[in-house]
Amino acid sequence: MTLAANPWLTSVAVPPIAEAQGWIEGRVFPADKPLIDVCQAVPGYAPPDQLVAFMADALKNPSTHRYTDIEGLADLRAALAADIHRVYAGNVTAANVLITAGCNQAYCLSTAALAKAGDEIILPLPYYFNYQMWLEMIGVTPRHVRFRPEAGGQPDLNEIRGLINPKTKALVLISPNNPTGTVYPPEYLSAALRLCRETGIALILDETYRDFMPHDAAPHGLFGEKGWEQNLLHLYSFSKVFCLTGHRVGAIVGDPKLLDQIGKSMDCVAICAPRLGQIAAQRGLEALHDWRGGNTRLMRDRLAALQKAFARNDLGYEVVSAGAYFAYVKHPHQGRNATDVAKRLADKQNLLALPGSMFGPGQESFLRVAFANVDADRMPEIAARLAADAASAW
Amino acid sequence: MTLAANPWLTSVAVPPIAEAQGWIEGRVFPADKPLIDVCQAVPGYAPPDQLVAFMADALKNPSTHRYTDIEGLADLRAALAADIHRVYAGNVTAANVLITAGCNQAYCLSTAALAKAGDEIILPLPYYFNYQMWLEMIGVTPRHVRFRPEAGGQPDLNEIRGLINPKTKALVLISPNNPTGTVYPPEYLSAALRLCRETGIALILDETYRDFMPHDAAPHGLFGEKGWEQNLLHLYSFSKVFCLTGHRVGAIVGDPKLLDQIGKSMDCVAICAPRLGQIAAQRGLEALHDWRGGNTRLMRDRLAALQKAFARNDLGYEVVSAGAYFAYVKHPHQGRNATDVAKRLADKQNLLALPGSMFGPGQESFLRVAFANVDADRMPEIAARLAADAASAW
Repeated sequence: MTLAANPWLTSVAVPPIAEAQGWIEGRVFPADKPLIDVCQAVPGYAPPDQLVAFMADALKNPSTHRYTDIEGLADLRAALAADIHRVYAGNVTAANVLITAGCNQAYCLSTAALAKAGDEIILPLPYYFNYQMWLEMIGVTPRHVRFRPEAGGQPDLNEIRGLINPKTKALVLISPNNPTGTVYPPEYLSAALRLCRETGIALILDETYRDFMPHDAAPHGLFGEKGWEQNLLHLYSFSKVFCLTGHRVGAIVGDPKLLDQIGKSMDCVAICAPRLGQIAAQRGLEALHDWRGGNTRLMRDRLAALQKAFARNDLGYEVVSAGAYFAYVKHPHQGRNATDVAKRLADKQNLLALPGSMFGPGQESFLRVAFANVDADRMPEIAARLAADAASAW
Repeated sequence: MTLAANPWLTSVAVPPIAEAQGWIEGRVFPADKPLIDVCQAVPGYAPPDQLVAFMADALKNPSTHRYTDIEGLADLRAALAADIHRVYAGNVTAANVLITAGCNQAYCLSTAALAKAGDEIILPLPYYFNYQMWLEMIGVTPRHVRFRPEAGGQPDLNEIRGLINPKTKALVLISPNNPTGTVYPPEYLSAALRLCRETGIALILDETYRDFMPHDAAPHGLFGEKGWEQNLLHLYSFSKVFCLTGHRVGAIVGDPKLLDQIGKSMDCVAICAPRLGQIAAQRGLEALHDWRGGNTRLMRDRLAALQKAFARNDLGYEVVSAGAYFAYVKHPHQGRNATDVAKRLADKQNLLALPGSMFGPGQESFLRVAFANVDADRMPEIAARLAADAASAW
């Protein structure tokens, strides 16, 4: 092209999922060794028939085809506030909720509402790649925090404190984590919010995967802390829990005054989240409690099946952490970079996982296995392919 | 809030449509003088039954609920390329098309792909407010060009040339224009592209309203010019033509290499446009040719009815320009600011239009009437209310 594109954008890495899918483009896989695609975090099942029927019915209403308010449908906002109260207790009302077109958008708008070009935001390693890409393209400097597999994947709060300076606007935590599956305990999150409060920055807490916690206890008590909204922005997605990835609905929960500011950028970037997705999300919150709980158990079963299958002695690969949708595994090919390992798995084992290098520096030893779309009884097959890879010479 | 939000964002004006809707919040309108809402550009009719039925059927396919590729459904991209060829001739293929979640998003991603904070983009006056807001919030300086009602609303290309400097990345034109309804002639657009080529900047040409041209001739011949994609980005929306505003689907047409860059930000901000909207847009392009043409004629009839109704001698208001979805009118209250005039119309005449001041400096004499959702036989009623306002003392 003749035009010089924005150098902040051109220097950003290409989207990882699309890149990995490119590795297998055009390939035909044999029936006895079909592709196992664990590169993208998508539920493997469809939304329930009753939700689909409800959506089809909603299409008959002319208003379904029209814009909503910028901040989303009032009833959905109230339903999410009620759902948060049910899960976390605490003080969240509809006024604390702004609906976005997916959780990625929730993150983009939240960070851009706090930081301008030249400012800094703290992203622990390994990071969720889109979160790094976005900061780079808007000229905000991501500051990284060392990955500590030995500490359950919890970033060191003292290290974080040492990074905070007047340009720092937010700390981003994802729990359950993408890509590691790590679940941060309530005390850790409480300490993180305290640190943010003391230093005057925001805690952006992405809980996209909170419906897939390993236990039924509240993920944390932050919403019950007095003045939580002064420093906390909670991000959520309806995509995973209700299998609505294609309908693009997520949310930001925070201070109404800050949401008013975010509404300005929502108006520009999206005008509003797609209405049918909002209608579906509301229905899901209000009428799919049991179905949702069933999927929580299904995902726990898949995780347990993965852990059992991966326990074989000759796996070669080591599960560093696992939870919700993800396992973060250490590959056995010391000195090889993660992309070469991932490509070889795709080429020889018909297994598509993402290399750790897509999740930041220092991650060459790891791969992310997004297993949510794999039935429990297929986990031994994944393990067998990893073991076969570990055993075969380069 | 405790947190200091990004000052580039906090200094941006509040979203105009929401602000105007706030003026009438909670009001109940009498049956003999109901609200006439001409503040937002939305089609007044619903999508056709056959499209709604097609969408309901598509919901039965599990893939409908899943992400698409970042750049959108391949078949929709091909269908839009074919539609552009039908309307404009020229050389556009699916590779030139990236699908976005609405045309606002197409603009946000296009401008951010070209300009970083500190750069400049040229927005002629009056501007479409979201286009100004977005540049402000990402730290790009909008450079304005004088409104010339006396020259058919065409911004002076010499004035534009005089604004171009090494920081200038793009000129933005909207045709048919929002808010004025002005349609730029092909020769003007050709000269604008030539200017952009000579000066090494992009022409971002928003043709959201191109299905509502006053004639059936091609809007311009730019797609037939050799190497058009080196400097042209064309923006489109499926929202208006197929009445899919709530489904959020638009497009960017340009250089595939630049679209690859834009794909990175699309991945972050949206992952993909909602799939059902994409499916509906494709169906619309392929199967709703006659219905679409019928709406083109309907909108021409509404425009003609408005012009006829507004020709009454005692209107007080003057139609400065009109076309597609919009009339830009000059109010008779010299010295009053446009917001006061618009509020009085809402309060006393139950007519909600946007003040020119929402479209930039120097627009205090004007109002935008977005008449697309008003039946032709209601235009005399709008004229009567304007005349009543003109005749009544402050």
